[in-house]
Amino acid sequence: MRSSYCGLVNETFDGQIVTLMGWAHRRRDHGGVIFIDLRDREGVVQVVCDPDRPEMFKTAEGVRGEFCLKVVGKVRQRMAGTENANLASGRVEVLCHDLEVLNPSVTPPFQLDDDNLSETVRLTHRVLDLRRPQMQKNLMLRYRVAMEVRKFLDANGFVDIETPMLTKSTPEGARDYLVPSRVHDGQFFALPQSPQLFKQLLMVAGFDRYYQITKCFRDEDLRADRQPEFTQIDIETSFLTEEEIRAMFEGMIRSVFRNAMGVELPVYPVMPYSEAMFKYGSDKPDLRVKLEFTELTDVMKDVDFKVFSGPATTPGGRVVALRVPGGAEISRGEIDAYTEFVKIYGAKGLAWIKVNDVAKGRDGLQSPIVKNLHDAAIGEILARTGACNGDLLFFGADKSKVVNDAIGALRLKVGHSEFGKKNGLFEDKWAPLWVVDFPMFEYDEGEDRWNACHHPFTSPKDGHEQLMATDPGACVAKAYDMVLNGWELGGGSIRIHRADVQSKVFEALKISEEDQRIKFGFLLDALQYGAPPHGGLAFGLDRLITLMTKAESIRDVIAFPKTQRAQCLLTGAPSNVDEKQLRELHIRLRNAQPAAS
Amino acid sequence: MRSSYCGLVNETFDGQIVTLMGWAHRRRDHGGVIFIDLRDREGVVQVVCDPDRPEMFKTAEGVRGEFCLKVVGKVRQRMAGTENANLASGRVEVLCHDLEVLNPSVTPPFQLDDDNLSETVRLTHRVLDLRRPQMQKNLMLRYRVAMEVRKFLDANGFVDIETPMLTKSTPEGARDYLVPSRVHDGQFFALPQSPQLFKQLLMVAGFDRYYQITKCFRDEDLRADRQPEFTQIDIETSFLTEEEIRAMFEGMIRSVFRNAMGVELPVYPVMPYSEAMFKYGSDKPDLRVKLEFTELTDVMKDVDFKVFSGPATTPGGRVVALRVPGGAEISRGEIDAYTEFVKIYGAKGLAWIKVNDVAKGRDGLQSPIVKNLHDAAIGEILARTGACNGDLLFFGADKSKVVNDAIGALRLKVGHSEFGKKNGLFEDKWAPLWVVDFPMFEYDEGEDRWNACHHPFTSPKDGHEQLMATDPGACVAKAYDMVLNGWELGGGSIRIHRADVQSKVFEALKISEEDQRIKFGFLLDALQYGAPPHGGLAFGLDRLITLMTKAESIRDVIAFPKTQRAQCLLTGAPSNVDEKQLRELHIRLRNAQPAAS
Repeated sequence: MRSSYCGLVNETFDGQIVTLMGWAHRRRDHGGVIFIDLRDREGVVQVVCDPDRPEMFKTAEGVRGEFCLKVVGKVRQRMAGTENANLASGRVEVLCHDLEVLNPSVTPPFQLDDDNLSETVRLTHRVLDLRRPQMQKNLMLRYRVAMEVRKFLDANGFVDIETPMLTKSTPEGARDYLVPSRVHDGQFFALPQSPQLFKQLLMVAGFDRYYQITKCFRDEDLRADRQPEFTQIDIETSFLTEEEIRAMFEGMIRSVFRNAMGVELPVYPVMPYSEAMFKYGSDKPDLRVKLEFTELTDVMKDVDFKVFSGPATTPGGRVVALRVPGGAEISRGEIDAYTEFVKIYGAKGLAWIKVNDVAKGRDGLQSPIVKNLHDAAIGEILARTGACNGDLLFFGADKSKVVNDAIGALRLKVGHSEFGKKNGLFEDKWAPLWVVDFPMFEYDEGEDRWNACHHPFTSPKDGHEQLMATDPGACVAKAYDMVLNGWELGGGSIRIHRADVQSKVFEALKISEEDQRIKFGFLLDALQYGAPPHGGLAFGLDRLITLMTKAESIRDVIAFPKTQRAQCLLTGAPSNVDEKQLRELHIRLRNAQPAAS
Repeated sequence: MRSSYCGLVNETFDGQIVTLMGWAHRRRDHGGVIFIDLRDREGVVQVVCDPDRPEMFKTAEGVRGEFCLKVVGKVRQRMAGTENANLASGRVEVLCHDLEVLNPSVTPPFQLDDDNLSETVRLTHRVLDLRRPQMQKNLMLRYRVAMEVRKFLDANGFVDIETPMLTKSTPEGARDYLVPSRVHDGQFFALPQSPQLFKQLLMVAGFDRYYQITKCFRDEDLRADRQPEFTQIDIETSFLTEEEIRAMFEGMIRSVFRNAMGVELPVYPVMPYSEAMFKYGSDKPDLRVKLEFTELTDVMKDVDFKVFSGPATTPGGRVVALRVPGGAEISRGEIDAYTEFVKIYGAKGLAWIKVNDVAKGRDGLQSPIVKNLHDAAIGEILARTGACNGDLLFFGADKSKVVNDAIGALRLKVGHSEFGKKNGLFEDKWAPLWVVDFPMFEYDEGEDRWNACHHPFTSPKDGHEQLMATDPGACVAKAYDMVLNGWELGGGSIRIHRADVQSKVFEALKISEEDQRIKFGFLLDALQYGAPPHGGLAFGLDRLITLMTKAESIRDVIAFPKTQRAQCLLTGAPSNVDEKQLRELHIRLRNAQPAAS
């Protein structure tokens, strides 16, 4: 048994005999002496193999990279001038008395400190990739965070209760992963997209405070930050108000950052959804970027410039400016690049004005569009944006969604650019907030129906119950999202605890009574038996850790992730299976010869 | 927000105003006053509604069972003579000032205190069933145990690392649950039967100490104590010996019993597999039962009684006696019942001898078989069993497996019987032990091949490597099971950490090199890169909690279990799915009209 982890050996061990287990991170000969950097999960320590112990030295000569070793030796101070300030163990070394090769290694396919590996190589050789100190740190932090979450919830009376992985398919929301039943011919389980219904049932059952850190599944085409299976910190409580829930879980995330990272988060601003969309065009604004929209829709109704007046006079249209302080130094080439960028979000172009001299009014502006705007409009633009000499104004004018998406993305792009950082438009800090008062419903034009913004079990604000039937678009929900640095960390809502209100939501969503019975009958049934007022939220653990570690990809905080083609390159999953297995499950392949994938 | 849980209100609250949330457990009128037993997850408190507050009293009159209520009131001592010693709150009551119905309830389909409900009713109305105090206690204890496990492992440097749920099908061992891939036509994921390979890979990756409390899946026909999905406490460590691992996890289970239940477990005896089979015919002996086998195979070789001499002279046969002290009082009828019982395990009958007077030898015995045994055999039976006057001797003679199964089961049956308990053959205590030195392989006669007893990654004992090729049946593994009261709580092994040894095991198991590559290539590959010596074990959490709560069924310690037909009666899973879903997954049903299930 080891006496210490390698990475923890420091000057307090001076003079002690230690037993270490680890891997040969580097090995080098220097002046007839062999130096081995011995690595374990806690870090590296330098082991010195001196030729005056011939047997041990002979073993050391055979050591190559990634050999698994046992070292017994004496800790001593390094010679002056040879300390390594980058290592916790950098002031000491271990003079090796005894060296045992526990297992040799063939030559690894890559150097562990090579930072330019393709993701394919890394995921194919994931076991070696996981030996890299950064991956070890990421997964150790992930564990620390999960444990801090558990400690906080335990101290607050929350109980971890497991909900089923093999459950019922409800073709709402995302696509389910299905699991054919062997016992029940023609029937299928689904893997849970979230334990939403079960956690509500546990509240009805009286468990009062529930949590689970659990896998959820969505069979969707993968974006950079999505995985087929992802981990959710899932929480529900009875008898608390929205404000009490928010306060508690703001406290939880604050305690996690404090205890796992030594970071003190600020108090969260609370921002209504409408304000977030108004100022930032986003329901998850990155408050590190100090740029805001200026509303101009009303100003542009009567200008002789269709690009602005069109959206300004069309219901659902919006015109905004984004003032970029000091942006006049941005080159035409960069503006052209931003113009291409906003097209990704559906914008047709990107109007702009450089403000050279505010005092001169129209004549102090440089822009292809100024000639199309009357004096009153120009005056209002300058006044509302508070433009100063040397600023650049960008404009968005289109359907609200396009303006919000395009200028919202532009806001981030400019803020995070070198220019933005240099000019103080971006503050490198932790910027959390709550976004609240989400709409209950959003209109799906394609389907000509209202959909639930959050999910159909979300409670309307007190007094908004009637709006569900009369004006669904005006109905506000008791829903809340926690946002950090422009990422949605988590979200939740107060749930509906009365069967009659739940039925009204289903009516607004045009879910037939039969469908209600089939899909949610057990929930409606449970609500009849004195269901308590309850609510909760869920956090994406993968995303939280990605943020905390500043990892480039969510795949860097998951031990064995899938690729964006939903494959595990290490094990080769998914794979073909035996015909016998399919027969037992009462299914067959549609395509006898599976298409190459 | 509540000021206390109902069940925690006691005499220390005397005189305080409390706010409680809970359910109307019982309501009764008595002398013009309404008494409501208000229940939450911590227990029950008596609420007194007095008519001198008319508005509140009117509300109280409308309260029915399972209404969800908010009560504000003043705690006071109960009147002398009306205390309830069964309740933590039984010396006090709450004089209700304010009563609010948070949600009414329709009449529940059963009384919560009805102990004679069918399992079908309970699982169909699981939400109400979970309100029963016993179910609340079971799941709260389950949580407490899981948390104690986490605390212990955290303190010992173990790190919770999540392994994939969507993984590769390896048609070894039990049947996999399959998940069709949408992206890869004709291919399937499998749900993990255990994270075995991944935890070994994490050791190779250098994480040193891993754990996970995670769901595992086996699509097998269900026995009483099996579920399609079950929860495993899965653990692996590098650089520890078998003895060190056993000591650590004996400590873990001891700490769990101490901290979650206040039970101090004894030090575990360590028993080789061979001894367990020799004495108890079982590799998970229930040491609470004070009965042991007496080996008689050698004695019976030359008796003139084929029933005994046949097995005694056949390789793989066994003859044993089970001495039951005081068993002479067991009636012929009971003996006949035991005879039927052992037939379940393949025994053809059950020979027996009642010992009336040892001193008289053959003449002091009452038995249908004594006439067939010569004097030397009878002398040896009496000497070896240590039979006393009033004892009963049972005999098993057959293939070893049949004898072990049948007489092993008989040993438990007699020990746990009323007779056994009355006569001190059963001691009501916690009786843990380690069973060690399991064989590496067991012979499958049907398939004419050796199978791995534990799993094919188990290390042979030092010095037994060569036996894998020359005498697989004699090869002993570094495998160990933790047994408690006759249940296997968990088990594990030291794993093979060298690729060459792993290959030899696959050879002994006659797994072709091609199959090795396809199924375990990634493990063999990983072992080449300096894999550390490692080992671990896994505990069945469901089973552990079932034992701790003395629940009748594993389903009583799982919030939403499946029936023995692998169905969820609450949600109706599994269920039919849309044709569109099947099409997207490139599969179709074999039977257009699913058979009724």
